[in-house]
Amino acid sequence: MNEISNYKIRAGNFRENWIHFIHGLQDRICLGLEEMDGKAKFKEDRWERAESGGGGKTRFIENGNVFEKGGVNTSVVFGNVSDAMRTQLKIDGSKWFACGLSLVLHPLNPFVPTVHANWRYFELYNESDEIIDRWFGGGTDLTPYYLFKEDAFHFHSTLKQTLDSFGEQLYPLYKSECDRYFSNHHREEEMRGIGGIFYDYLRPRDEHDAERLFAFQEANGNIFLQAYLPIVEKRMGLPFGQDEIKWQEIRRGRYVEFNLIHDRGTLFGLKTNGRTESILMSLPPRARWLYNYQPETGSREDELLQVCLHPKEWIEI
Amino acid sequence: MNEISNYKIRAGNFRENWIHFIHGLQDRICLGLEEMDGKAKFKEDRWERAESGGGGKTRFIENGNVFEKGGVNTSVVFGNVSDAMRTQLKIDGSKWFACGLSLVLHPLNPFVPTVHANWRYFELYNESDEIIDRWFGGGTDLTPYYLFKEDAFHFHSTLKQTLDSFGEQLYPLYKSECDRYFSNHHREEEMRGIGGIFYDYLRPRDEHDAERLFAFQEANGNIFLQAYLPIVEKRMGLPFGQDEIKWQEIRRGRYVEFNLIHDRGTLFGLKTNGRTESILMSLPPRARWLYNYQPETGSREDELLQVCLHPKEWIEI
Repeated sequence: MNEISNYKIRAGNFRENWIHFIHGLQDRICLGLEEMDGKAKFKEDRWERAESGGGGKTRFIENGNVFEKGGVNTSVVFGNVSDAMRTQLKIDGSKWFACGLSLVLHPLNPFVPTVHANWRYFELYNESDEIIDRWFGGGTDLTPYYLFKEDAFHFHSTLKQTLDSFGEQLYPLYKSECDRYFSNHHREEEMRGIGGIFYDYLRPRDEHDAERLFAFQEANGNIFLQAYLPIVEKRMGLPFGQDEIKWQEIRRGRYVEFNLIHDRGTLFGLKTNGRTESILMSLPPRARWLYNYQPETGSREDELLQVCLHPKEWIEI
Repeated sequence: MNEISNYKIRAGNFRENWIHFIHGLQDRICLGLEEMDGKAKFKEDRWERAESGGGGKTRFIENGNVFEKGGVNTSVVFGNVSDAMRTQLKIDGSKWFACGLSLVLHPLNPFVPTVHANWRYFELYNESDEIIDRWFGGGTDLTPYYLFKEDAFHFHSTLKQTLDSFGEQLYPLYKSECDRYFSNHHREEEMRGIGGIFYDYLRPRDEHDAERLFAFQEANGNIFLQAYLPIVEKRMGLPFGQDEIKWQEIRRGRYVEFNLIHDRGTLFGLKTNGRTESILMSLPPRARWLYNYQPETGSREDELLQVCLHPKEWIEI
């Protein structure tokens, strides 16, 4: 991998500490998921960005007992701000650095939800290599195919507890940001799932604030397995048939639509010449499109659709 | 349906003649496809654009002997140029009108190619309802899953013959436009299929030229069934199994990627608040994504992939 130290940017330990945290988190999350799966192991592809700098560790899993397809990817990338970034991503500066972890897991059993999480840190520099802007972003969200209210409650309340220790105003704020973000605007704001939390452009006011935001990201990353795995464990043994698979594939079609039409992360990756197979690992193993399909009113499929169309409060705040 | 005559735009018979042609062509193409299928019939959904004006006739077919999923859609739409159109589609004017036919057919048998065609006419007006710009666009392209060189030759040579009578420079030009357009830029310019012809912004110099371009569109629309159906007839009886379905679904994933990330028509439809189910009818019945899948070198799957990566001349010109 290109050595990031060759890239002449002034940076203290902060950035290095973040990279260290992200790689450690990747190891821990992969281990926890492998233990739950019991069969499949993550495989790793290391890659480098050809044109400017950096690379990543793509870890993918497939054909498991639990996980049909998924990835837990990290990348540490940097380069010059390109014209495409300037005009399409509205990034104004000379050079940039980004490091983050992004994961998506698509389980086999339609009663086990798909999950997505991402934690990232971005720095922007002027021509003298001085930091002119920096921010954190991230979030964790759940995409069930069938609704179990207790699972939604568990997921959201685990996230809320973590956020509460950083300020009780955060969960309501980032929960509604999440509802707004993961929305298929071309389908009357239908959400791709039941949300979670989403935040972006968290800019530190000073070094002390930067450490606080770092700790906030750590807390969110560290709580991920506790938010997700108990749900997997509870639902992975439920029997299912072709009808449930059909519905799962239809909803996965919506997942594809969101990621390819609306998702900023996907856009950023493709516009900055990221590694396509790593970026598009978020896509499900299979998706289905039926013309104008509507589940029967009052069915379990319709119950899920309704909470996607009308986001709910899962916790009494 | 909102009456287009209620929309106060000066227009002669030209626009009405185009609408008439498009609706007649829709009838004829649907009939020809139904005859080939022998089982499924097209169903029609008429829809109206809520906010400003116009609507469409969506005709969809599914679960046929030959066609697993497809649509032959027409629309006649008009409205005020919105901010989104101005900034994102670079359309500068006060009002606009568009009418066209768009079709996509996804056959069941992986040896039968998917086909797409579109013929459209667009007018742009100033605040005094005078035409300030107008253009034709369209094309026809083939997306096989397995390569039969004689089919590629038949398809391209049928299109070439039609174009030649309007000028022998046209086929080479629009063939290479097509290769450029239907390319997944995020996958090293891999094409979604073996192309055909594509043209856009054909602006008439005068009324005589407008009639000539109209006739050009008519000729292309009228030749469609002759370009496609002989291929369907030749391949629809070939036996296939799970391996061929798997490859078909993987290639259909690429089709989804192109349509949702790059296709201008899809973008235009979604940005102008078109009818989502009609726009996204182009999506295949099923798609599959496997991490970093590569067909075996020298296999029939690889043979197809190679001509997508390296567009060929199918005709000695």
